[in-house]
Amino acid sequence: MFFDTLTEKIHALGNPTVAGLDPKPEHLPEALLRRHLEGAQDAAAALAAAYLEFNRGLIDALCDIVPAVKPQSAYYEALGWQGVRCFAETCAYARSRGMLVIADCKRNDIGSTAQAYSQAYLGKLTAAGQSREVFACDAVTVNAYLGSDGVKPFIEDCKAYGKGIFALVKTSNPSSGELQDVPLENGLTVYQHMGRLLETLAADTVGACGYSAVGAVVGATYPKQLEQLRRELAHTFFLVPGYGAQGGGAQDAAFAFDEKGGGAIINSSRAIMCAYKKTGGEYAEAARREALSMRDALRGAVRGL
Amino acid sequence: MFFDTLTEKIHALGNPTVAGLDPKPEHLPEALLRRHLEGAQDAAAALAAAYLEFNRGLIDALCDIVPAVKPQSAYYEALGWQGVRCFAETCAYARSRGMLVIADCKRNDIGSTAQAYSQAYLGKLTAAGQSREVFACDAVTVNAYLGSDGVKPFIEDCKAYGKGIFALVKTSNPSSGELQDVPLENGLTVYQHMGRLLETLAADTVGACGYSAVGAVVGATYPKQLEQLRRELAHTFFLVPGYGAQGGGAQDAAFAFDEKGGGAIINSSRAIMCAYKKTGGEYAEAARREALSMRDALRGAVRGL
Repeated sequence: MFFDTLTEKIHALGNPTVAGLDPKPEHLPEALLRRHLEGAQDAAAALAAAYLEFNRGLIDALCDIVPAVKPQSAYYEALGWQGVRCFAETCAYARSRGMLVIADCKRNDIGSTAQAYSQAYLGKLTAAGQSREVFACDAVTVNAYLGSDGVKPFIEDCKAYGKGIFALVKTSNPSSGELQDVPLENGLTVYQHMGRLLETLAADTVGACGYSAVGAVVGATYPKQLEQLRRELAHTFFLVPGYGAQGGGAQDAAFAFDEKGGGAIINSSRAIMCAYKKTGGEYAEAARREALSMRDALRGAVRGL
Repeated sequence: MFFDTLTEKIHALGNPTVAGLDPKPEHLPEALLRRHLEGAQDAAAALAAAYLEFNRGLIDALCDIVPAVKPQSAYYEALGWQGVRCFAETCAYARSRGMLVIADCKRNDIGSTAQAYSQAYLGKLTAAGQSREVFACDAVTVNAYLGSDGVKPFIEDCKAYGKGIFALVKTSNPSSGELQDVPLENGLTVYQHMGRLLETLAADTVGACGYSAVGAVVGATYPKQLEQLRRELAHTFFLVPGYGAQGGGAQDAAFAFDEKGGGAIINSSRAIMCAYKKTGGEYAEAARREALSMRDALRGAVRGL
């Protein structure tokens, strides 16, 4: 069960961090980018090769201190199918170095279409006498605006393959309240309603760690709501964006954890990936130093870690 | 502007239908599937080749009577990057046969990540002295749970490249009400609030057809809500799923249209793709007959078409 494995790995490393792998041309060291792009016949293929080299360097530098990576699908799709191949190779490489892989795809649909998404990121492709994972992921992010029809197919694969999902509840962005904070007739907000709906749907999937197969995305930029949701959703593991570049600090992120220092993982993307831009030096070494410093800040702020 | 072009094309063909291209092994004629899978070394590559042949046959059979296709990304992603390449080739082939392409991806994220998704489906990849479309799409579906931060980057590309989006408002599935129908403190429902939020965001993009660059997905399975939203959202073009296999009829779908027979397009996926299973005969010819019959049913039910 994904959240049991993740919890063990977080405690073994003493580090509840997930490193975002969100490559963009401007995030890559100039020399690395230039080497791939110079004289390139096909810009998409050249960028995909540059992204893969960049990601491998980050994974090599982080795999013994950070439990998981979170590649963001959008940046790979922006290159077309060659980018998606790089996404697949990135997932497989992280897995080969012992990291857990959370695919940040925010996928959503219903019925057999949701099943197809779930096959891609959690299940297996079975045809022509072969059966294999499509992308080597351990969990995927999901958007549940469609209701339980959009979540249940993923839960089925979580049960079948020991995987997990994170559904959007209260996101880290400035405008998240335009829909999510709207007060309901019953006194709750939209995001509270969403959180409760998900906790109910996943009730029969709670693992040894005390958390179900359906986690929630809750931003560190809204510490009050984070604290409230941690109280209300006893069996929901939190994926927390908004740390660092978006403004959330270790004290804010600390609200995501339970009393034993469990139940949450904090994402950092740009701060780790682009650490070299602030500190100088080689990008992978700079990323490692930044990840260690984030680990220490979280250890200082979170009881039980 | 996408919705101007779409409106012209719908009226030129007298047909407000979009044909879903949602390939699954069980949807394909057995002989076609077997021909690709027999002895295949790589199941994903073989299925992708089978899907592309199937889609080309459908596009050839429909391109002079149906204005647009809607490939559903999930079914292609379920094969991995080779499936995504097939998605790209399907979009390009439909475009080459004069059809408009609505990518059904329900993408959602914020800021620069939303920009990356928008680049993939609406914008251009510019690098190494090259600039080209990534996927040959004219519009993409979007999930706006994240608020305006998740929609504005797409609107920017709609303006720059004359494209359009459809955001989920009231979806066709049985459980859509679990979140979307919940009553708010102010007397509206979540889906009404979402619809109004989108109409406001897109106010400065209204084209000659009277509709903005931000359309809405509203299911034919909820005709009362469809009628209500048509009244409330004067500048929002509707993409209507739920016709046929999901239970919505032409009389239900008719509520999506304005008085001039504009403002909506009705999706049919399985009923067209798999028509041959009901009627026998060659799959592409059967799809064409079904599409003509759907066109005639809508002409009979919608005033002004």
